[in-house]
Amino acid sequence: MRMTVTLSDVADHLGITLTPASVSGAEGDDTAPALLSSPVTGLATLARAGSQQVAFLASDQYLAQLRATGAIAVILKPQHAEDSPVPCFITPDPYSAYAKLTHLFSHDKTELLFGDQTAKASGEGADAFIQNIHPSAHIASDARLGQGVCIGPNVVIGSGVQIGDGARIAAGTSVGSRSRIGRNVLIYPQASIYHDVIIGDRSIIHSHCTVGSDGFGFAPHRDGFIKIEQLGGVRIGSDVEIGAGTTIDRGALDDTVIGDGVKLDNQIQIAHNVEIGDHTVLAACVGIAGSTRVGKHCMIGGGVGIAGHLTICDQVNITGMTLVTKDISSPGVYSSGTAVEPNSNWRRNVARFRQLDGYIRTLINLEKEVRDLRERIEQR
Amino acid sequence: MRMTVTLSDVADHLGITLTPASVSGAEGDDTAPALLSSPVTGLATLARAGSQQVAFLASDQYLAQLRATGAIAVILKPQHAEDSPVPCFITPDPYSAYAKLTHLFSHDKTELLFGDQTAKASGEGADAFIQNIHPSAHIASDARLGQGVCIGPNVVIGSGVQIGDGARIAAGTSVGSRSRIGRNVLIYPQASIYHDVIIGDRSIIHSHCTVGSDGFGFAPHRDGFIKIEQLGGVRIGSDVEIGAGTTIDRGALDDTVIGDGVKLDNQIQIAHNVEIGDHTVLAACVGIAGSTRVGKHCMIGGGVGIAGHLTICDQVNITGMTLVTKDISSPGVYSSGTAVEPNSNWRRNVARFRQLDGYIRTLINLEKEVRDLRERIEQR
Amino acid sequence: MRMTVTLSDVADHLGITLTPASVSGAEGDDTAPALLSSPVTGLATLARAGSQQVAFLASDQYLAQLRATGAIAVILKPQHAEDSPVPCFITPDPYSAYAKLTHLFSHDKTELLFGDQTAKASGEGADAFIQNIHPSAHIASDARLGQGVCIGPNVVIGSGVQIGDGARIAAGTSVGSRSRIGRNVLIYPQASIYHDVIIGDRSIIHSHCTVGSDGFGFAPHRDGFIKIEQLGGVRIGSDVEIGAGTTIDRGALDDTVIGDGVKLDNQIQIAHNVEIGDHTVLAACVGIAGSTRVGKHCMIGGGVGIAGHLTICDQVNITGMTLVTKDISSPGVYSSGTAVEPNSNWRRNVARFRQLDGYIRTLINLEKEVRDLRERIEQR
Repeated sequence: MRMTVTLSDVADHLGITLTPASVSGAEGDDTAPALLSSPVTGLATLARAGSQQVAFLASDQYLAQLRATGAIAVILKPQHAEDSPVPCFITPDPYSAYAKLTHLFSHDKTELLFGDQTAKASGEGADAFIQNIHPSAHIASDARLGQGVCIGPNVVIGSGVQIGDGARIAAGTSVGSRSRIGRNVLIYPQASIYHDVIIGDRSIIHSHCTVGSDGFGFAPHRDGFIKIEQLGGVRIGSDVEIGAGTTIDRGALDDTVIGDGVKLDNQIQIAHNVEIGDHTVLAACVGIAGSTRVGKHCMIGGGVGIAGHLTICDQVNITGMTLVTKDISSPGVYSSGTAVEPNSNWRRNVARFRQLDGYIRTLINLEKEVRDLRERIEQR
Repeated sequence: MRMTVTLSDVADHLGITLTPASVSGAEGDDTAPALLSSPVTGLATLARAGSQQVAFLASDQYLAQLRATGAIAVILKPQHAEDSPVPCFITPDPYSAYAKLTHLFSHDKTELLFGDQTAKASGEGADAFIQNIHPSAHIASDARLGQGVCIGPNVVIGSGVQIGDGARIAAGTSVGSRSRIGRNVLIYPQASIYHDVIIGDRSIIHSHCTVGSDGFGFAPHRDGFIKIEQLGGVRIGSDVEIGAGTTIDRGALDDTVIGDGVKLDNQIQIAHNVEIGDHTVLAACVGIAGSTRVGKHCMIGGGVGIAGHLTICDQVNITGMTLVTKDISSPGVYSSGTAVEPNSNWRRNVARFRQLDGYIRTLINLEKEVRDLRERIEQR
Repeated sequence: MRMTVTLSDVADHLGITLTPASVSGAEGDDTAPALLSSPVTGLATLARAGSQQVAFLASDQYLAQLRATGAIAVILKPQHAEDSPVPCFITPDPYSAYAKLTHLFSHDKTELLFGDQTAKASGEGADAFIQNIHPSAHIASDARLGQGVCIGPNVVIGSGVQIGDGARIAAGTSVGSRSRIGRNVLIYPQASIYHDVIIGDRSIIHSHCTVGSDGFGFAPHRDGFIKIEQLGGVRIGSDVEIGAGTTIDRGALDDTVIGDGVKLDNQIQIAHNVEIGDHTVLAACVGIAGSTRVGKHCMIGGGVGIAGHLTICDQVNITGMTLVTKDISSPGVYSSGTAVEPNSNWRRNVARFRQLDGYIRTLINLEKEVRDLRERIEQR
């Protein structure tokens, strides 16, 4: 986005009319053409925004920052409008409006990742092209690439691979045999997609993701193990985003399945035959063991571990670093662990925890004993 | 595996004769030649198997599924044979037989990873070749490659590297100077093997593994740190498997050592000078700090953390997300942490935990006090 | 380091004179020229050192090993000198001296990573060269590379990138548009640096690091999410080291910031807009959620998780696998979790923990009741 954006463009992109600053005290219409044609260089927080940046206010917590902001305009809720010293875009959901507006100021990923590739076949319009494939890419002769596909340097595409229209695969990524990459998928540099993996339309995969590595399966045998070859694949839905360094294993017999709209943060581990329901969000460093099913619209906090062969129902929220070792069958918020405290306290508490069962037995006995003493006193 | 496999082939591969279905009620020999020559397309679970798939039953839990299975044949224990509606392969260890059978239906990795490389030097037989090296690979002039080696696109092999017969190194992997890769090793795309790393025969390394990165060593010095150069290497045994994204640091002075037959799942972190005994299995996301020794035949659950400079004896089983901060010197099962519960309960319990030592002191005092009261009552 | 190093070289490198063995009983000067010219092949632990290796003693714990060491010389504190059977280098800080000495025996990274690249432009002296760029590297025409830069095979350098003098970028690494790599930075194979990332002088980045991937930001919207484009960058200070597989996300609006001298171990996850103060050290597998600020000179143990939007002050030490969910505003040592114990005990304790609040209520009631009983007894 190197062209000049104006406040009028912002209003158009948001589909919201600019409202004059009610607290400015000025009688004049400050949404006049001169204001609307002001340049906007980007978005910023209320506290840091300069006179060419738009900010947003999503919660009461930052009202003081609103009153002091240097932004050219602020996206906010109706109830906050009167506190704004600058013109505002009023909406019941400023956070979504902000999310939408980031797209206006985002760098063009094609330009970023493939902009300096010279081998373009030009198409009809100024921006049109058929395919932009770096000459150093290794593409199997029987792979099928859609229109508008971009392939970066050193990309390796295996036999029988299908790549949908508009998909972009950046430098060094490899795609194994027979895998199918959906339309408008974006894969950043150095992802590794194994064979027989399906990725739905518009999904985004970041660097160093591995999709389709062998599930961890071994049968004990004398003093070693027999490897269980992993014969299933991986099916990833549409509009999925997968963070950097995340690993998703292929299934043992059936497929590992990631639903539509699922968002996976960085360094997540998904074992074989896990199924994750649509629109579930996993924060970074989550690990889910084999064959577990996570429902739809769940929110799994960072570092959570979920054991294998479990079922987690829809709309479950699990807080950070919780260990889940049994099914969860009611929506709600779940947790485990203990809270941070000074180490000297913690050492004492942990030592007590190790004998907790004994102490509780003491407590229960004591309860009986006190009841008994009371009776004896009262009988007198 | 694209040729047709028959039930007879399955019997041969397993080394087990097909037993007719005892509950079929049929008097005829259903292991007759016609049945044995039936095509088998693969393996499936009891519940999903179709008429050309073999299934297996390893535990009583799935007996109902056995009775309703659509499989052409089932691998099972002697005691389950009479419940089978279809012919069966009877063995005391169906899980191992299943593991073995997966190899019959597994894709040929050479075909998958190197199949579309044209630069083959043909050998004696139809399948024979001397070496299959992609022309884009960068191989140091003094590296030594064994017979039957496959090297994928963009692989980088450093000076003095030795690669054993039949080893296969897929796209984009780099192997640092003087490292030695054993016979029939399989390395998936984009692994990074640093210098002076030894990998034993038949080991498998998945994408985005790093082996031989610097151990984390710094000496505090004024207001910064002096890096401690890591002068040791990494020695990995034979028949080891290393999952995607796992990192194994090189030793500070001596080597980091992974024993024979060790299985490491995805995203494991092995710090410098750790030693892991033969046939130990680590589930995903385990972290082991520097200089710790883990014994043989241990099972370490997902997300376990083991502090540095500890010794864990043989045959220790540690459950998921346990924190180990002291030596373990007896075989057995070990755990730490707390179990998942609804967040509202958890908040109350955690608040109590932070004052646990105080409460237990109260309990102990109370115990004394009750004893004292009892004495006073009894003395009257 | 393939040339011969002598004990005299070691003394020069350390800047410490060799002291004769006081316990040898020998009257002669064993630091005589013959000794000083003895070859030293490297460093080793006291227990394993041979007659051409130097060892060090940093704590009383290993005094017995000192007395039995086979090392040619030992680095130690003044109070340990009299126990040394061999000549010694006396210093108040043997660990720093050891750290310093590792540099004398470390392999030359340029030799290791770029030594077999033939395309060298020779410079003035024997070791001088202008740039060593592998012909397979893809470098945008408008990228600017300093003097003495080494670029390995298949490296991809985007448009507008600046690379400082003496920086070395090994095989397969990609550097996104407009990123700036400082002087003498060392990047190991297959790192992924996204666009608009700044890396300070002398920093070291290991394999499979991702720097600048999108922060995890989505605005809920009907039954899905709107992606929040991440418009900030990443700024990494000087003298930083980043371990293998670590991921650092770019900021949402402002930058993610890693201070000078920060050391990050393997598989760490740093979310968007995190700020880490100078000289803070994070052990492996730490995860820090968005917008959290960690102070200077902190030590964060392995597997620690820190929630988002928190402030951790300077000089905080957090032990392994602690979960931090609130600000820490005093220096000190902090912990959470429970300690490892046999699983059978643990199960009982954990079951009690789940009802801890109830038990503590019982305890508190019991305390009142006992007080009441005491009063009734004493009133009689």
